[in-house]
Amino acid sequence: MITDPALRQALEAALESGDLVRGTTSPNPPVGAAILSAEGELVGVGGTQPPGGPHAEVIALRAAGGRARGGTAVVTLEPCNHTGRTGPCSQALIDAGIARVFFVHPDPNDAAAGGADHLRAHGVEATRIDAHVPALRPWLAAVRLGRPHVTLKFAQTLDGFTAALDGTSRWITGEVARRRVHEDRRRRDAIVVGTGTALADNPSLTARTADGSLYPEQPRRVVIGSREIPADAAPNLHRLGFERHPEISAALAALWEAGARDVLVEGGARLASGFLAAGYVDAVQAYVAPTLLGAGHGVLAGAVGETLADAARFTLESVTRLGDDVLYEMTRKEVH
Amino acid sequence: MITDPALRQALEAALESGDLVRGTTSPNPPVGAAILSAEGELVGVGGTQPPGGPHAEVIALRAAGGRARGGTAVVTLEPCNHTGRTGPCSQALIDAGIARVFFVHPDPNDAAAGGADHLRAHGVEATRIDAHVPALRPWLAAVRLGRPHVTLKFAQTLDGFTAALDGTSRWITGEVARRRVHEDRRRRDAIVVGTGTALADNPSLTARTADGSLYPEQPRRVVIGSREIPADAAPNLHRLGFERHPEISAALAALWEAGARDVLVEGGARLASGFLAAGYVDAVQAYVAPTLLGAGHGVLAGAVGETLADAARFTLESVTRLGDDVLYEMTRKEVH
Ligand SMILES: NC(=O)c1ccc[n+]([C@@H]2O[C@H](COP(=O)([O-])OP(=O)(O)OC[C@H]3O[C@@H](n4cnc5c(N)ncnc54)[C@H](OP(=O)(O)O)[C@@H]3O)[C@@H](O)[C@H]2O)c1
Ligand SMILES: NC(=O)c1ccc[n+]([C@@H]2O[C@H](COP(=O)([O-])OP(=O)(O)OC[C@H]3O[C@@H](n4cnc5c(N)ncnc54)[C@H](OP(=O)(O)O)[C@@H]3O)[C@@H](O)[C@H]2O)c1
Repeated sequence: MITDPALRQALEAALESGDLVRGTTSPNPPVGAAILSAEGELVGVGGTQPPGGPHAEVIALRAAGGRARGGTAVVTLEPCNHTGRTGPCSQALIDAGIARVFFVHPDPNDAAAGGADHLRAHGVEATRIDAHVPALRPWLAAVRLGRPHVTLKFAQTLDGFTAALDGTSRWITGEVARRRVHEDRRRRDAIVVGTGTALADNPSLTARTADGSLYPEQPRRVVIGSREIPADAAPNLHRLGFERHPEISAALAALWEAGARDVLVEGGARLASGFLAAGYVDAVQAYVAPTLLGAGHGVLAGAVGETLADAARFTLESVTRLGDDVLYEMTRKEVH
Repeated sequence: MITDPALRQALEAALESGDLVRGTTSPNPPVGAAILSAEGELVGVGGTQPPGGPHAEVIALRAAGGRARGGTAVVTLEPCNHTGRTGPCSQALIDAGIARVFFVHPDPNDAAAGGADHLRAHGVEATRIDAHVPALRPWLAAVRLGRPHVTLKFAQTLDGFTAALDGTSRWITGEVARRRVHEDRRRRDAIVVGTGTALADNPSLTARTADGSLYPEQPRRVVIGSREIPADAAPNLHRLGFERHPEISAALAALWEAGARDVLVEGGARLASGFLAAGYVDAVQAYVAPTLLGAGHGVLAGAVGETLADAARFTLESVTRLGDDVLYEMTRKEVH
């Protein structure tokens, strides 16, 4: 735990900067960085720019200018040691005269790792610190798994229904929850649905502001399934453009190749059951309304198992009130 | 809002005292009282004793003794003005020389009301204050409704199942949640189940400590339904004793007559649907496990309606983490 107030402030600024660039950096991680001057003043913050652009450290160093000399850098991920489309960040920190670097996660990529050692070899203190970096969790899991991190999302009544018997499902949850869904979508690399949902709902799969306009960042729109999707059945998707994949593994492989690391699966129940059965559900987001329906369409399309011991078990991460609803977030233990 | 620190302390002591006697006072309300001396020192606290025993104010005044003179009383309910098995509390406050009384809820019982006026007529300041008194909510609702307040309780997976397809339901939720259920049970006047649950589960319907021993306070054990309950099918209930009622309205009427004001309906699904259809569900407690089952036995036994607009809507009161589970509490808007 960091107790020094200047360092705490820098860590928080780095966490926030990384969070702000989620959804724009893949296949690179959404990293955040902050620079303290030798006097302990916060003189620069930055987040990773879109692929080809500068990394977080470079943005933060640019903002700090000469005040970085003798100062401290706080970064959510170990500075890279890799000359790709941009030069290595560890060298940029050395060149700027940074005296100490604190970083949270070691770089899991063999090609990019070694930044801390490179810093130390050039007389810069490099220390790992302990902090919770939500923005990096999907990316870190994806790198470890070699496929995009998958979050299964659904909106349900408290008793577990995503639609009534007659199929009505708009709107299960309220305005605040729906706005949160759109804020979340813009931070993802792709939104995925099954052909059932594509054909039934004419979805847009876009991230929209409260007034209905599009955010500048838009995730890929992906439909999984073999059935045709005629333009008159799904005009929104045809107008906006979308990708199609016949089944789940092929979709994840193609998304990985295309650079996606963090995808959101928004249903329906059959596709959700398919992802769960294949062991691909790394995180769950349930938006739960304070209502009871008694019967209707469930979250999943079939039994995970016959007996209670077969239930899919997750780690509860958080419960958040959103107006009259609750966002319930869980993760698979082994993944995070 | 109360801002004076001594008064705040007294209010909190009164709230806590009232909460501690829940489950022991019916048909009387679980009231809490606290006395501040003329110097503003907390000199007495008390909660309502079981029927026939002294009310909260009298217990608190006894603890305060002569230090009550010129002091302040804080009570969660307007002091009664009624000579029943005990003398009126308003008179006891006057006799003790209390100068000011703050109370939260006015007394809704015609027979007992008028305490504030009686105090004022004897030169005691009596002021209503605004505070949230959870302990009194069921009692106040019951008095208004003329029947016991009903809390529907169930334990479910996140996707709304109370048991797997093969009927297994032990244990959906973890140790912390189960302990909370028992702490909650001891504060109720009755625990109610349907004959289906009585025959299937051999339930005890007792409030037990972590080591399995019985709390001193035990709610009535109630089974609703017309089927016989043979001793060999439900040996626990036969050993402990229980009440039977053929159906819901008769049960609530009999429980009211017996003095119960705050009852907990613990299932199963058919009885829960019956209570909901009859409009008797005033509050819901869902203990939600971080698991998905996909299929199994639901919270309710049938549809509340065909379409989403028919869903039973509640006000979300709180979400509380209990170990790996979440306690989700909602109330009917019109009732509280
Ligand atoms: N409340 C909510 O959160 C929410 C969210 C989304 C949808 N919904 C509702 O859900 C309904 C649609 O759900 P649905 O279950 O019918 O359809 P779905 O899950 O959207 O799509 C199912 C289709 O996905 C394809 N698929 C490919 N690989 C699969 C695999 N491994 N496992 C399963 N499916 C795979 C198959 O398409 P092919 O048959 O074409 O090969 C399958 O038929 C709609 O009515 C929609 O309104 C509700
Ligand atoms: N996970 C949990 O939270 C939880 C809690 C409790 C129970 N359970 C499970 O639920 C199962 C039992 O549920 P169940 O639905 O079969 O039985 P149930 O709801 O416990 O009992 C249903 C019976 O209640 C009686 N009843 C009287 N008036 C009624 C009314 N107005 N509406 C409906 N019922 C009325 C009827 O008895 P008669 O037919 O005798 O007239 C009816 O058959 C058990 O397997 C148990 O393990 C789970």
